[in-house]
Amino acid sequence: MSNATHYQRRQEHLRGIMQRSGWSALLVTDLPNVRYLCGFTGSAGVLGFTRRHSAFFSDGRYRQQAAEEVVAQHVVTDGPPLRNASQWLARQKPSAIGYEGGHLSAHDFSSLRRAVHVKTRWKDSGQALEHLRMVKDSDEIRRIRRAAELGAEIFQVALQHLSSAARECDVAAEMEYAARTRGADGVSFDTIVAGGKRSALPHGRASRRRLPRRGFVVIDFGVILAGYCSDRTRTVHLGKPGGAARRLYEAVQRAQEAALRRLRPGVTAAEVDRAAREVLEAAGWGRYFTHSTGHGVGLEIHEPPRLAAGQKTKLQPGMIVTIEPGAYVPGEGGVRIEDMALITDRGHEVLAPASKDLLVV
Amino acid sequence: MSNATHYQRRQEHLRGIMQRSGWSALLVTDLPNVRYLCGFTGSAGVLGFTRRHSAFFSDGRYRQQAAEEVVAQHVVTDGPPLRNASQWLARQKPSAIGYEGGHLSAHDFSSLRRAVHVKTRWKDSGQALEHLRMVKDSDEIRRIRRAAELGAEIFQVALQHLSSAARECDVAAEMEYAARTRGADGVSFDTIVAGGKRSALPHGRASRRRLPRRGFVVIDFGVILAGYCSDRTRTVHLGKPGGAARRLYEAVQRAQEAALRRLRPGVTAAEVDRAAREVLEAAGWGRYFTHSTGHGVGLEIHEPPRLAAGQKTKLQPGMIVTIEPGAYVPGEGGVRIEDMALITDRGHEVLAPASKDLLVV
Repeated sequence: MSNATHYQRRQEHLRGIMQRSGWSALLVTDLPNVRYLCGFTGSAGVLGFTRRHSAFFSDGRYRQQAAEEVVAQHVVTDGPPLRNASQWLARQKPSAIGYEGGHLSAHDFSSLRRAVHVKTRWKDSGQALEHLRMVKDSDEIRRIRRAAELGAEIFQVALQHLSSAARECDVAAEMEYAARTRGADGVSFDTIVAGGKRSALPHGRASRRRLPRRGFVVIDFGVILAGYCSDRTRTVHLGKPGGAARRLYEAVQRAQEAALRRLRPGVTAAEVDRAAREVLEAAGWGRYFTHSTGHGVGLEIHEPPRLAAGQKTKLQPGMIVTIEPGAYVPGEGGVRIEDMALITDRGHEVLAPASKDLLVV
Repeated sequence: MSNATHYQRRQEHLRGIMQRSGWSALLVTDLPNVRYLCGFTGSAGVLGFTRRHSAFFSDGRYRQQAAEEVVAQHVVTDGPPLRNASQWLARQKPSAIGYEGGHLSAHDFSSLRRAVHVKTRWKDSGQALEHLRMVKDSDEIRRIRRAAELGAEIFQVALQHLSSAARECDVAAEMEYAARTRGADGVSFDTIVAGGKRSALPHGRASRRRLPRRGFVVIDFGVILAGYCSDRTRTVHLGKPGGAARRLYEAVQRAQEAALRRLRPGVTAAEVDRAAREVLEAAGWGRYFTHSTGHGVGLEIHEPPRLAAGQKTKLQPGMIVTIEPGAYVPGEGGVRIEDMALITDRGHEVLAPASKDLLVV
């Protein structure tokens, strides 16, 4: 299937949503959603749809790039994108326009309303497009798999640089350097390298502190490759771990495996979260598991579904989620283990699988 | 002067703006503006002001960090920031609230209006805070100077790795690695390393292509250090340049120096742009200078003022701007030379100055 065909398919799905929602037109202003629907990879562009037409708007900097990348009936790059889009929408005289209220500034929304016919009704499309993106197509799965594989390779680089002489930021620098020279566009979030007591911070961005002689090091790292994100965490121990550290690690490992075993179509996001949480609660670490079990990954590092208490989304084949339980004992240390998994017709497949047994460095 | 004093001063200036604009309250939702006013460096926070009170709102992840960093009378971290901020605003019963229409989503603005008294008037504050940030205080000048010095150091690293065997992304990887290990938080924009024909792209992000045996290489790179951005461009030539290449380079160099000579208090942004443009026009390269001459730099890589035609902003002591004319001949190659300069009482000071004569590698 050609690349263009993927975008056409996505636009067909979108038209189904427009019909069901009663929007005669839709304005897409969130860049990841724009990229998803038409292939544009630049930093300024909006996309308009009516039931029959599609039009992409960017500025002069992107003339050549838009001509090469964008799958849409009209491609306009001769002025301010939003102004041109609003004039185009006005000419279509739509009765109801869907707009991305969470991805359009109050200032721009106000300008839009002034430019379009007063009788048009405006309807916030909410997370409609993010929900469409939850189920990945074959092109996306291929790209995310490659990103996950590159991300996994980079952990081998980290291991070569872990020592009590290294600063956390030095390890992060080596990982980011290796990712860049192996073709990554960049990292998908600020690299976490958190050693000793800092491993108890769920989001311990690599600091200038040196790694300790003894203790956990949480490494959470992702690349962006061909537009798609990877996300993976491993926790290693510097020096010989004591009994309590070993028990903490093994409880998180069992929790992660329990959540993975629940991953299959029809199961709710909350049930997966519950599976991990029960293991940690039974082992006595429940109150140290202070975040949710996982999230979708794709063009963005955090996408729906959220795997958390109360989340009723049912898993479907083609979703790709992280499974990342952790336990963090303030002032002592913490452990997190994270894989990405693709929901398949019958169960799931871990992307770029590798051992999760405690590695002592 | 202590750090807290800088934030208090900035808040006093803000109160002056509120008074002059007739806002009895102000809601600040743009993160760089939040950081500027109260010191918060995290990724989720909003700031509310009345004529007498100030309050900062974030979520539970930032409890400890907000307590350490934020200069405000009230610091609230026990729930969704915007919801808590709107309840706080509602209790103040303001007659007119300034809000950042360009930095608040239509969805959030709509929620806010529902939460606050119906008789309150809402006034878009436009770029009021960005204009306040144009003139840097002593703490900011110190930080930007250090960022500029680190950025300049990294160009020496680039020179060691420039050869026709290297891919553009390899050179970028070496620069980013060096920045990271020397303490940078990250890069201030996607690193540009554009060789040969690609040097004619004003925004040629480092690609996987190898550098040519002969031709220009444009390198545009910046770090973020202690929150502040640097921005610098040098163009080198691989192999011996021909006469036309040398003339192109020298014209850009003269244009850059002419613009720098115009930099002093009272001169308009347009006049500085004009000074660079006239040199390139006189040399016959005017139509290849396709962008503006420069921009402010600070917490963000692009800030007001814009040094471009029609821009009437008058330069003031304490502004820090880039001076970066370029000329790009499609299909052949391009040159850009960029420095950062601080406007002083009597003229200007280039930050981290270094030779701009054509370097042949």
